[in-house]
Amino acid sequence: MSNAIETRLAELGLTLPDAPAPAANYVPYVLTGNTLYVSGQISQGPEGFITGKLGADVSVEDGAKAAQSCALSLLAQVRAACDGDLTRLKRVVKLVGFVNSTADFTDQPKVINGASDTMVEVLGDVGRHARSAVSAASLPFNVAVEIEGIFEIA
Amino acid sequence: MSNAIETRLAELGLTLPDAPAPAANYVPYVLTGNTLYVSGQISQGPEGFITGKLGADVSVEDGAKAAQSCALSLLAQVRAACDGDLTRLKRVVKLVGFVNSTADFTDQPKVINGASDTMVEVLGDVGRHARSAVSAASLPFNVAVEIEGIFEIA
Amino acid sequence: MSNAIETRLAELGLTLPDAPAPAANYVPYVLTGNTLYVSGQISQGPEGFITGKLGADVSVEDGAKAAQSCALSLLAQVRAACDGDLTRLKRVVKLVGFVNSTADFTDQPKVINGASDTMVEVLGDVGRHARSAVSAASLPFNVAVEIEGIFEIA
Repeated sequence: MSNAIETRLAELGLTLPDAPAPAANYVPYVLTGNTLYVSGQISQGPEGFITGKLGADVSVEDGAKAAQSCALSLLAQVRAACDGDLTRLKRVVKLVGFVNSTADFTDQPKVINGASDTMVEVLGDVGRHARSAVSAASLPFNVAVEIEGIFEIA
Repeated sequence: MSNAIETRLAELGLTLPDAPAPAANYVPYVLTGNTLYVSGQISQGPEGFITGKLGADVSVEDGAKAAQSCALSLLAQVRAACDGDLTRLKRVVKLVGFVNSTADFTDQPKVINGASDTMVEVLGDVGRHARSAVSAASLPFNVAVEIEGIFEIA
Repeated sequence: MSNAIETRLAELGLTLPDAPAPAANYVPYVLTGNTLYVSGQISQGPEGFITGKLGADVSVEDGAKAAQSCALSLLAQVRAACDGDLTRLKRVVKLVGFVNSTADFTDQPKVINGASDTMVEVLGDVGRHARSAVSAASLPFNVAVEIEGIFEIA
């Protein structure tokens, strides 16, 4: 468990949660070949789901924090898929970020940066990924952000 | 055609439709390596498109049935890609489910479970998949659900 | 640079833009194995972003033009990933098209056809792809369309 990535997380004051259980009848990730598909992770923290709608009752700054929580959950799932060894992660390939927002919200990139920045801060070049950021009309349990990911594993 | 999967479908009282034709200028699936990408399948049954908006004029229960119809269309496409032999399907890798809903709807997971449950009931462990479930502001032809899928093929 | 694809683009009166820079802290594409994941490309032209909402202030015809601009940006990214040689593109595997629309808009397929048709016109059978087309509640910078793509590269 003690390696450069775990050290970097600690330096950033970040903690990976336990890999969240799926909200329904599916699995948190599937590995096919070297490609790991992680289910959409919804924004949550120690106090529970991070909810609300951007453009209404959630600021861009708080939305970015919600997106960061999704990134940490994604990494927790990757770590579980790698039997606890995140050094087996070769590349964050792609993230798709869904923002729970009003119809006139336009700062999806700034919100999802909360996840993208975290990936790069924690993983360096391994964390640099392709990405899409869009708004959803609404999200499960009224969470503010949901992000799914594709990862290359050694 | 007669194999364990076809038998299981019959036991469940389910019938795969003919693989639906695309609604526009694209193809229903593309195979690259062992990975099969199936186009978004929109909810429909023998009487035509299953339409409406969750949170307004479609119940969660009916939404789940709409999602099941998407799952059956996805499997119909996989069967076509496998020259009629679904035993060549090694894994349902990932589904992304889009729910046509109002801005305050929060039961996306229960709706998309209509597809996830069907995959597992029909295919067993092969059907266990990664998943995202989000709301779309609206969907083609006002259908209630659209689901795309990634599959591993032998 | 001079090859059948570049010639075909010229015949169609189309020009690939410079590969657009990402709007935030991520990269325009990631190659893993032979699979190239290109980040969501937002509608834009020489005059800047192509903005507006389908069902409100953008016609289906103009939406299709916006989608075409996304297709050209996707191809520009693929060309960059192939060191300028689009003949290394073996297949457009999948597109996911997000349409910025009102809650009652139902012509997503016609809008995204602006991208799908362009792929097939420029690339022939190589351009035939799987696809999903859905509405987003809103999109970055209020653009009309955002499209991400997966491509097989030689």
